[in-house]
Amino acid sequence: MRAAVIHAAKDLRIDPVETRAMRDGEVEVRIEAGGICGSDLHYYLHGGFGAVRLKEPMILGHEIAGTVTRIGGNVSKVSVGQRVAVNPSRPCGQCRYCAEGKQNHCLDMRFYGSAMRFPHVQGGFRESLVCDEAQAVPVSPLTSAAQAAFAEPLAVCLHAVNRAGPLLGRRVLVTGAGPIGALTIIAARRAGALEIVATDVADAPLAMARRVGADAAINVATDAQALDRYAADKGYFDVMFEASGNGAALASGLAVVRPRGVIVQIGVGGDVTIPLNVVVAKEFDLRGTFRFHEEFALAVDLIGNNLVDVMPLLTATVPLADAREAFELAADRSRSMKVQLSFA
Amino acid sequence: MRAAVIHAAKDLRIDPVETRAMRDGEVEVRIEAGGICGSDLHYYLHGGFGAVRLKEPMILGHEIAGTVTRIGGNVSKVSVGQRVAVNPSRPCGQCRYCAEGKQNHCLDMRFYGSAMRFPHVQGGFRESLVCDEAQAVPVSPLTSAAQAAFAEPLAVCLHAVNRAGPLLGRRVLVTGAGPIGALTIIAARRAGALEIVATDVADAPLAMARRVGADAAINVATDAQALDRYAADKGYFDVMFEASGNGAALASGLAVVRPRGVIVQIGVGGDVTIPLNVVVAKEFDLRGTFRFHEEFALAVDLIGNNLVDVMPLLTATVPLADAREAFELAADRSRSMKVQLSFA
Amino acid sequence: MRAAVIHAAKDLRIDPVETRAMRDGEVEVRIEAGGICGSDLHYYLHGGFGAVRLKEPMILGHEIAGTVTRIGGNVSKVSVGQRVAVNPSRPCGQCRYCAEGKQNHCLDMRFYGSAMRFPHVQGGFRESLVCDEAQAVPVSPLTSAAQAAFAEPLAVCLHAVNRAGPLLGRRVLVTGAGPIGALTIIAARRAGALEIVATDVADAPLAMARRVGADAAINVATDAQALDRYAADKGYFDVMFEASGNGAALASGLAVVRPRGVIVQIGVGGDVTIPLNVVVAKEFDLRGTFRFHEEFALAVDLIGNNLVDVMPLLTATVPLADAREAFELAADRSRSMKVQLSFA
Amino acid sequence: MRAAVIHAAKDLRIDPVETRAMRDGEVEVRIEAGGICGSDLHYYLHGGFGAVRLKEPMILGHEIAGTVTRIGGNVSKVSVGQRVAVNPSRPCGQCRYCAEGKQNHCLDMRFYGSAMRFPHVQGGFRESLVCDEAQAVPVSPLTSAAQAAFAEPLAVCLHAVNRAGPLLGRRVLVTGAGPIGALTIIAARRAGALEIVATDVADAPLAMARRVGADAAINVATDAQALDRYAADKGYFDVMFEASGNGAALASGLAVVRPRGVIVQIGVGGDVTIPLNVVVAKEFDLRGTFRFHEEFALAVDLIGNNLVDVMPLLTATVPLADAREAFELAADRSRSMKVQLSFA
Repeated sequence: MRAAVIHAAKDLRIDPVETRAMRDGEVEVRIEAGGICGSDLHYYLHGGFGAVRLKEPMILGHEIAGTVTRIGGNVSKVSVGQRVAVNPSRPCGQCRYCAEGKQNHCLDMRFYGSAMRFPHVQGGFRESLVCDEAQAVPVSPLTSAAQAAFAEPLAVCLHAVNRAGPLLGRRVLVTGAGPIGALTIIAARRAGALEIVATDVADAPLAMARRVGADAAINVATDAQALDRYAADKGYFDVMFEASGNGAALASGLAVVRPRGVIVQIGVGGDVTIPLNVVVAKEFDLRGTFRFHEEFALAVDLIGNNLVDVMPLLTATVPLADAREAFELAADRSRSMKVQLSFA
Repeated sequence: MRAAVIHAAKDLRIDPVETRAMRDGEVEVRIEAGGICGSDLHYYLHGGFGAVRLKEPMILGHEIAGTVTRIGGNVSKVSVGQRVAVNPSRPCGQCRYCAEGKQNHCLDMRFYGSAMRFPHVQGGFRESLVCDEAQAVPVSPLTSAAQAAFAEPLAVCLHAVNRAGPLLGRRVLVTGAGPIGALTIIAARRAGALEIVATDVADAPLAMARRVGADAAINVATDAQALDRYAADKGYFDVMFEASGNGAALASGLAVVRPRGVIVQIGVGGDVTIPLNVVVAKEFDLRGTFRFHEEFALAVDLIGNNLVDVMPLLTATVPLADAREAFELAADRSRSMKVQLSFA
Repeated sequence: MRAAVIHAAKDLRIDPVETRAMRDGEVEVRIEAGGICGSDLHYYLHGGFGAVRLKEPMILGHEIAGTVTRIGGNVSKVSVGQRVAVNPSRPCGQCRYCAEGKQNHCLDMRFYGSAMRFPHVQGGFRESLVCDEAQAVPVSPLTSAAQAAFAEPLAVCLHAVNRAGPLLGRRVLVTGAGPIGALTIIAARRAGALEIVATDVADAPLAMARRVGADAAINVATDAQALDRYAADKGYFDVMFEASGNGAALASGLAVVRPRGVIVQIGVGGDVTIPLNVVVAKEFDLRGTFRFHEEFALAVDLIGNNLVDVMPLLTATVPLADAREAFELAADRSRSMKVQLSFA
Repeated sequence: MRAAVIHAAKDLRIDPVETRAMRDGEVEVRIEAGGICGSDLHYYLHGGFGAVRLKEPMILGHEIAGTVTRIGGNVSKVSVGQRVAVNPSRPCGQCRYCAEGKQNHCLDMRFYGSAMRFPHVQGGFRESLVCDEAQAVPVSPLTSAAQAAFAEPLAVCLHAVNRAGPLLGRRVLVTGAGPIGALTIIAARRAGALEIVATDVADAPLAMARRVGADAAINVATDAQALDRYAADKGYFDVMFEASGNGAALASGLAVVRPRGVIVQIGVGGDVTIPLNVVVAKEFDLRGTFRFHEEFALAVDLIGNNLVDVMPLLTATVPLADAREAFELAADRSRSMKVQLSFA
């Protein structure tokens, strides 16, 4: 069985790997689609991000879907032949945060394709995978593997939206219109946002933002003053989603979000400088958002019930054998939004 | 009638000023006590802070209390001879934020002793003051003018506590143990905090923090590692109040506040650098807090009903004639917590 | 000028009425559409409801829209010829509740077509109306008067949804599928509800519930056990909207709403019996919802931006001259959902 | 070893019982104090309540504390000789509600001394008890067994307070001044309530309510109009705790709680009649509260840190051998607030 294994920056290989034995409560899934995420790209381009660095070869991938090929003992909710989205998040279920219902902060989290712990947790860009039954979330009969592989990044954005509080009727700013920004637009509209304005420094993602529902899209690199129209009377937006991880994007929002507005930080940046006096004087509520928990099943349901349409974001599908090309393509924002690997 | 007027940095004078005529709905108050606040000190020491600069002479002071000496027409809730705390906050009552119940974000706010707008809004360090009836909040018969003059800074801290959400049973970190930090300790305990740890870079305020209820007080200048004991398992504190305006204090808390913890920023600093990845990964909720509205009346009631004791914080009372000495004393953290002017 | 005036139960007349003079800040609106509401029907059928009884003739109607024909002095946001939805809610803007942003609880509310106070507040089923500029909310150019007249009942339902808290991904039960129940289905879906089940005791409104988006519709009169499938494991629904005012409907939900579920009571019933032990043991959160405030403008915006489609609910349009027939038709649930008067 | 076993209404016996073997992760506790709760009294007086009926002999008691006498394997947080409060709540830790952090709604809850399931869960009025390590919560060195046995009912009230949301500065009505009402007064004050008014139909508990901190105490049986003074302007209280389970008490509050006020229903009554139109028009938020989870440890901490004083409520301590007399005494509200058994 083959897998896409990152050995070091720019050293991505299609390696043969073993399938481990299946235990009670586990299922085997033939992977059919795998979306390339920004963190996959970081490993590929830079060998990691921040303090998280590759220390051994690691299978990439955590946006995956496929079909169940075998089931272990005591498996009752999933059957062979069923299409599933695979939840890459494996909280321990025992620690204090799990007991509080904050599983995304689990003290013993094992998240697919992550080098945060050592040995690294191997990922899902592989032809076959054994996982817990609970990770294999059945999708509706009409859901394709490509759609199902969007469950994970959509879950990230649904969690971000949940962090924001109610959005019905709210005016929303989304800074950064890559896949996460675009899915946040979709999620925010689904949650009832009245008006959504997207910003980015490139035109291609902004065009996509418009296509998936943004009411306006602003290139802040070429039209630096365009946001100013929203600054009157202390601001216009009720909620801001910062999906770029860029300090300038965060700063740009502080002038146009209303007092007591909520700013949800999704993008992972490094150290950024913020004007503390503005945060104080406008009583902003700056909230981090990190991964998801119950939102994975919700993402599957929203996709399956046609309550969201994620497919416009899929800009290319590339066979596993050409994974390097797929990663290069995914890294080019002018050509790509979401690139998926196929495992036929 | 005399007032403490700031003309420029370090140029504080006791000037004669006129009392303006009283209109319907107004009352005249003989001021008896006035607490010196950090912003008063900024005007005195630096002629302002950030973009807010003195452009004309301004009477300082917004922590004031006294006795009603005359009442205008249509005044029904206040009578002559009554002791009152004077609310220095005057929102317009008409703008969008006032209509939403967010009066502290009023688009036309007039706050005593503030150079934010021009002409500046004159303050309350004066022997006599005419104000709206609604600003003169009667205190209980046993409340002294000195106690009543704490209503304003206590209101600031009550608002900060309200911004934090419920505190019953919470573990709380307070960084910065000046008057605002100390009053926050008092307010947080009143709201049910289970455990309160205070930090500062000086011993005198930390001793006061202990005296008003902190369970532990840490000098982070001399014992840089003392907070580390709270960092296990992703953090210990549920809520942090940052009352120093210092970026290092804010940063120090990020390691010891639990995931999804609330960090209330009270201190007004300038640009600070924060590690965005930590805010994201721990899903912090960083909330600014700015002044107060309904908390002013609450502060008066809590003081009047002996539900809080603010008097340990009063370290000196100085006659108006010696205002310069009072300001110098107030600026010395090793000797002073709260210094009040008296206007006998 | 003519108006639909209720004199007593079943005594609805088309009477000539005077148009009052226009003051500064007011506008004159030619009414074009007026929806008949349940409370209008109560006045028509029973002369009132509960303790609210007709004591003098009263123009009915508060779901109204039209075109501005004249504007008074100091009017800046509305111009002649503009189509507007007329907000029938007139809070005083001065009382304690208005200052807290809870205008729907105003101590001096004047709501069109209501006999709650005496003299009664005259309503909007009239050919021409003078109102405050702020009540005349401009609609988008493509919005018809019929659509605009849905702003008021939609606002009621948006407020109910706001009372419920976030609905993204929630499973929702709506009991009572009349106009308010149906608009609640539309609003809940707009706010991100994942699954919506409607119940009623009649088939016609249930068919409409399905048409406007309910995933399932259950006639609890003919299929009393149909809800039982949702009772396993302490319940299925996260949120319930009770739009019938019927105690049996409320009781039916207690078995199928999950612990800590939210039950929003919209329907105004009389005394109902509830099993207090169930409310306690399942820690329900039973919330009343009453009218609206900021949701009126939101309703106009959602309709104007095609974010909701209310028009399937309009089952008949009847000229003012035939108002009695219109009321009889509106009272017949087997034939009508929303009936509007036209004022051509 | 002896225990207080209820066989049928009024048939309470001191029976010999076996101590079961201790497993890994368990500890043995010598019980020293056990408070008699209202549900214990229901079993004693009526053989159960509502649908919950005794079907076999059951050891009563769930307000218990003692000293650890032995520890099993893998026990690390508790040592022999330590005084502990014993948490009678044993959620499964696996079901959907446990995973959501709502352990008090566990689908497989085993709560001491409860006939809700069959076989009944035996209680803690016994000389010795084997329980999970996690149930044995160490208390501070100065905490007596009598104090520690208040942890359970205090936890119930802390959970009720948590259900209410922030109480800082709130005006609070408590209806029913038995042990739960009185502990709610203590908890509400600890959480920052500004003013607390208690009502009951008997003078003795009202005197106790005053003693533990109520600002006013009203006998609604003898002074039916006394609450009317709070009805002006749509009501006075922000929050109401209904601790009597009596429909009349609930109804009495509806007139004096402000619009959007929160009413926390603690008392378990049967069917009660409520005026739905008032709940709607005032937009009340009626919330059930049931038992507790994390509040048990909090209760232990608040008692141990002297942040609450529960001891005034202890009106009698009776040896186990005289349990019947203890129950008769506890049932007499004119003589008793909390009666505890001792197990010396």
